[in-house]
Amino acid sequence: MEPGGDAARFGPGWAARALPQRLMLLLLTLLSGRGLHVAAAASSSSGAAAEDSSAMEELATEKEAEESHRQDSVSLLTFILLLTLTILTIWLFKHRRVRFLHETGLAMIYGLIVGVILRYGTPATSGHDKSLSCTQEDRAFSTLLVNVSGKFFEYTLKGEISPGKINSVEQNDMLRKVTFDPEVFFNILLPPIIFHAGYSLKKRHFFRNLGSILAYAFLGTAVSCFIIGNLMYGVVKLMKMVGQLSDKFYYTDCLFFGAIISATDPVTVLAIFNELHADVDLYALLFGESVLNDAVAIVLSSSIVAYQPAGLNTHTFDAAAFFKSVGIFLGIFSGSFTMGAVTGVVTALVTKFTKLHCFPLLETALFFLMSWSTFLLAEACGFTGVVAVLFCGITQAHYTYNNLSVESRSRTKQLFEVLHFLAENFIFSYMGLALFTFQKHVFSPIFIIGAFVAIFLGRAAHIYPLSFFLNLGRRHKIGWNFQQMMMFSGLRGAMAFALAIRDTASYARQMMFTTTLLIVFFTVWIVGGGTTPMLSWLNIRVGVKEPFEEDQNEHSWQYFRVGVDPDQDPPPNNDSFQVLQGDGPDSAGGNRTKQESAWLFRLWYSFDHNYLKPILTHSGPPLTTTLPAWCGLLAHCLTSPQVYDNQEPLREEDSDFILTEGDLTLTYGDSTVTANGSSGSHTASTSLEGGRKTKSSSEEVLEQDLGVGDQKISSRGTRLVFPLEDNA
Amino acid sequence: MEPGGDAARFGPGWAARALPQRLMLLLLTLLSGRGLHVAAAASSSSGAAAEDSSAMEELATEKEAEESHRQDSVSLLTFILLLTLTILTIWLFKHRRVRFLHETGLAMIYGLIVGVILRYGTPATSGHDKSLSCTQEDRAFSTLLVNVSGKFFEYTLKGEISPGKINSVEQNDMLRKVTFDPEVFFNILLPPIIFHAGYSLKKRHFFRNLGSILAYAFLGTAVSCFIIGNLMYGVVKLMKMVGQLSDKFYYTDCLFFGAIISATDPVTVLAIFNELHADVDLYALLFGESVLNDAVAIVLSSSIVAYQPAGLNTHTFDAAAFFKSVGIFLGIFSGSFTMGAVTGVVTALVTKFTKLHCFPLLETALFFLMSWSTFLLAEACGFTGVVAVLFCGITQAHYTYNNLSVESRSRTKQLFEVLHFLAENFIFSYMGLALFTFQKHVFSPIFIIGAFVAIFLGRAAHIYPLSFFLNLGRRHKIGWNFQQMMMFSGLRGAMAFALAIRDTASYARQMMFTTTLLIVFFTVWIVGGGTTPMLSWLNIRVGVKEPFEEDQNEHSWQYFRVGVDPDQDPPPNNDSFQVLQGDGPDSAGGNRTKQESAWLFRLWYSFDHNYLKPILTHSGPPLTTTLPAWCGLLAHCLTSPQVYDNQEPLREEDSDFILTEGDLTLTYGDSTVTANGSSGSHTASTSLEGGRKTKSSSEEVLEQDLGVGDQKISSRGTRLVFPLEDNA
Repeated sequence: MEPGGDAARFGPGWAARALPQRLMLLLLTLLSGRGLHVAAAASSSSGAAAEDSSAMEELATEKEAEESHRQDSVSLLTFILLLTLTILTIWLFKHRRVRFLHETGLAMIYGLIVGVILRYGTPATSGHDKSLSCTQEDRAFSTLLVNVSGKFFEYTLKGEISPGKINSVEQNDMLRKVTFDPEVFFNILLPPIIFHAGYSLKKRHFFRNLGSILAYAFLGTAVSCFIIGNLMYGVVKLMKMVGQLSDKFYYTDCLFFGAIISATDPVTVLAIFNELHADVDLYALLFGESVLNDAVAIVLSSSIVAYQPAGLNTHTFDAAAFFKSVGIFLGIFSGSFTMGAVTGVVTALVTKFTKLHCFPLLETALFFLMSWSTFLLAEACGFTGVVAVLFCGITQAHYTYNNLSVESRSRTKQLFEVLHFLAENFIFSYMGLALFTFQKHVFSPIFIIGAFVAIFLGRAAHIYPLSFFLNLGRRHKIGWNFQQMMMFSGLRGAMAFALAIRDTASYARQMMFTTTLLIVFFTVWIVGGGTTPMLSWLNIRVGVKEPFEEDQNEHSWQYFRVGVDPDQDPPPNNDSFQVLQGDGPDSAGGNRTKQESAWLFRLWYSFDHNYLKPILTHSGPPLTTTLPAWCGLLAHCLTSPQVYDNQEPLREEDSDFILTEGDLTLTYGDSTVTANGSSGSHTASTSLEGGRKTKSSSEEVLEQDLGVGDQKISSRGTRLVFPLEDNA
Repeated sequence: MEPGGDAARFGPGWAARALPQRLMLLLLTLLSGRGLHVAAAASSSSGAAAEDSSAMEELATEKEAEESHRQDSVSLLTFILLLTLTILTIWLFKHRRVRFLHETGLAMIYGLIVGVILRYGTPATSGHDKSLSCTQEDRAFSTLLVNVSGKFFEYTLKGEISPGKINSVEQNDMLRKVTFDPEVFFNILLPPIIFHAGYSLKKRHFFRNLGSILAYAFLGTAVSCFIIGNLMYGVVKLMKMVGQLSDKFYYTDCLFFGAIISATDPVTVLAIFNELHADVDLYALLFGESVLNDAVAIVLSSSIVAYQPAGLNTHTFDAAAFFKSVGIFLGIFSGSFTMGAVTGVVTALVTKFTKLHCFPLLETALFFLMSWSTFLLAEACGFTGVVAVLFCGITQAHYTYNNLSVESRSRTKQLFEVLHFLAENFIFSYMGLALFTFQKHVFSPIFIIGAFVAIFLGRAAHIYPLSFFLNLGRRHKIGWNFQQMMMFSGLRGAMAFALAIRDTASYARQMMFTTTLLIVFFTVWIVGGGTTPMLSWLNIRVGVKEPFEEDQNEHSWQYFRVGVDPDQDPPPNNDSFQVLQGDGPDSAGGNRTKQESAWLFRLWYSFDHNYLKPILTHSGPPLTTTLPAWCGLLAHCLTSPQVYDNQEPLREEDSDFILTEGDLTLTYGDSTVTANGSSGSHTASTSLEGGRKTKSSSEEVLEQDLGVGDQKISSRGTRLVFPLEDNA
């Protein structure tokens, strides 16, 4: 085992490299049950070259291959059984309204149990009787050509085996079989989880709190990473002093640990929030933060790895390297962001300008393929696929979703929901399993205790100060109880695990992995279980909207869709809408929008609403009204006929902005405000009046009691509709 | 290249073995873009063992790994681009109502084009500079331990390389990258296709024609296999005579070719049938035959491989071996069938006895996992996963589907529909690609021409005689035009390709593969394109029911769901229903059921209806009425409360049997026939009368004109409802 030294050799592409670990690595197994034996058994038919003379020998290899295949199937069956059990137990829990244990916690428990059984219950089979030693002088090559009595066979490198373990390499086939290649998490399991997070973002609340979310995600994660890294460096120093550290542990390793452990994943808390219909803004803050902070943590960790100048043995602070690292961070992040956004935009354009929505199956397939291609594109360009997928998800939800047929909307949502559910529970049950089947754990009590303290302090050090500064600018303050809840909700989950298991080559990394695993366990079980008491203790509003309380089925159904629907926000009975006046920033009425949001955000919102949405979707004001006159033809081409043609109602994903209650029809945007019983307002409808007389000049304020609460709809016939927060 | 000789060494598990081909094999690529480099690049961090001294070398390996990863991503992107293009073109075709080219044909064309570009357009990169030769004496092992200056590395066998090609092994990286492990088809792409086929079986028409379908699938495939095999043996003899055969080609190889090429896949024809709403019985015959005959062909081909006694060099006929082969066929087939059915039944029980239907996501996930586990279970037990999956699909559709919530029904259908669509088009575009990128084609004009003649004769030799014999027993004869259409629809597709590519080690197999590819191309393009003219030329009824003709969207939507919905049959306006009397086989009225169906089938139907459905689903008559009195308690436990409790309407998947038109409510089975305006019939409803007074004794014939055509509903209050064919 070579300690720590190889951290130095990680480049931006470090992720692509596999590790010299023997816990090998069956992706095939994950998917098919036909695993490595495809390679391992190749000798079967190759050996046939020796014609019939070695028939009996062949038969033996054949048997082996079959045996291996069966074991692969059995190991995958184990996981499926685990997931099935988890599903059935979740059902029971939901049925009985048990809330102290989330499905992910359950999956971990079952994983643990199976791990114990596999570890201590299965006999140790010693394999490797087929091995052959063969001496090379220089170094290990990735490919070997082996000459067997005149025939050449190709071998690929699987990994290093520490000399002491040669005889026990396959000491337990079953343990080996249930261990997956860590890249599986990054390339197969995380993408659907992350895409789903982006696609299911509750946009209204997310965008309303965008500034705060960005602050928590970027600044917060950086602060947390830095603080945890430094604290852990202190812990490591302490361990060195008391002689508990048996191998190298550099400062960059500590920072790396800070980065991976800063990825929060409050899936448990959010599920309970959703079930109890807790405050939507708090939900948006937590969900948005956790989604973005996964992306930040991935990029941060790879930047830290790239931070160390190659070939040097010093792991100390260096200004040049630091800025290089920041540069890499910005490069990878913005590159991945661009990839995701571009693919989303392309998908939106394709779905807008073809009539693909007549064929939901084609549409869904296209959507799936395009979203997948983001990942590949980003990886092919050297960016981070998972981050690209997140932003692709957000773009798809924001634009493409609008253009999809009704059936495709539910299909895509459901498809990714199922994938997300399976992937997430798989990861968590794998975590449970890994605690016992992973064979290179390094349990260090000091490090573990230090880490728990550090993550606590790291989170406190960004939640409270950031909230303070944010509150200076926010009208709707982040209350003390909200801050406590955010502090409390710093669970760690799938992303931290995946980042930690990705590289377990060195002693330091193994210690980090073990510690990460324990932190995930603790936070998911203890913190997850304590959410409900915490909510009531902190006096956080729950039951904001519980229309389904009586109907158990409906309620449960609702409950389960944790953050699923981009547009499943409760009807906007707690919000007022204000339509901003065309160009002037001053709006009449009691609500002052400009106080609400930053100049940059307002600029983006107006740009998005006036140009991007009309170009990319069937909604928004016609481009002919928003673009200057000289690009009239282009504008006409790009504007969807649906915008003019009232026969097909506007396809708006922002159901937030369309009030369907009462008898008010608010076709928002530049175009129209039609309202039954409105007080003589000038309803200049572009659609009704032929699509040309567009510039609406109605300045009257339409006021209409919606009958839900006592809030008002104050709309000014203009260009911009703005959601306001008045539930402070 | 070792010719033919290894066909002898295939056991029942032959499928598990990979082949010594250099067209290697990236499953990882298929899924993640992170391919083989995981293994190939392992040297990167392993080599780090040599500490910093070899840092520059490491960096080079690193670069290589990154490069490899990028290439993987690019190759997968190629396929995604292909599929996206296909989808867009299909949309255009559907939009313009072009019917001469099906999406699968299109996928092949695009594949071909990309294949040509890859083959002739990309520069040949020569890799393998990292290789090292190392001499072994005896034979190739599956695992190698290599000692590099005191460190041990593990290598796995990838395959054999023919000596002449050592220097050109990776002559074209791109060609290599786009070539997948053949097992990918069997373990990843075929299962969703086959499951979907089973799940989407239009049960009414399928079961109505079950006898004929079974005859075509089992007898027909066997006959076809035998005839093609013998004809091809003749062709091979001929080739030997004229000196065109450069290597061994045994009789068993010919039979094997007969087996793989007997798997028909009339996907193109069926799509057009569905679009034109051609005769449903013909559709059922074709679809049912093609689905079952895939299963038969798989098992048949592996039985033929097992037929040859191990270690012998003779490939001649041997009675003992033949019976052994038949035994293996029966064993594998019945084993796989049992696996599939059992998993389906377990899923049905789980979904019935838990209230999982409150949580559609959980339900869908469970359904997916259970269906997948069938595959693994069968593979783990040494049966054929694909066949098990087919029967699991049928069982799920027949029982489990009943128990699912409405949302889960559409979710599961849509999920598997998308998977099926993607997998199918992927396979077909891969086929197009393979024609140019596969590097071991053996084009033999005589063999190819012989094969075309043989498959024609082979199909003729079972369609016409079998139809003749079947017509002796069928009331609703299979007309001459139907026979011609079935003859014409003998397309070959994904299954034949997957079986052929599975083993391309020997000369004979390579020739078979090339021929199969050409047959698939020809049949899909020419036969697929000729379907519409053929239908009109043969005077086969189309437009049997075209309710959506006017509405283009709806129509297209309908069109696209090729064989998707188990219960999307047209409303039963062309069928009459007859409720059989309890035990007596004689039924009154003009329709004589017992003539219609075989005794065995009737027995099964009654067993299924009276016992299986009530046990496994929420429908059917209460078990308390069908089971003997002494198992009353058990019956009561097993019977779903829904059966008694009318508040939740009966969940019947057999929408065929429930007439919802007019004001007639036919809650079929033992229980009730309620009809408004029925002529004073004794409507003894179990559900309405408390669930105990069950044995209905109404003998009156309810006759009611449905207003659709002039057929009658003749029902006799009893135990069994039977669909009849009267559209002869």
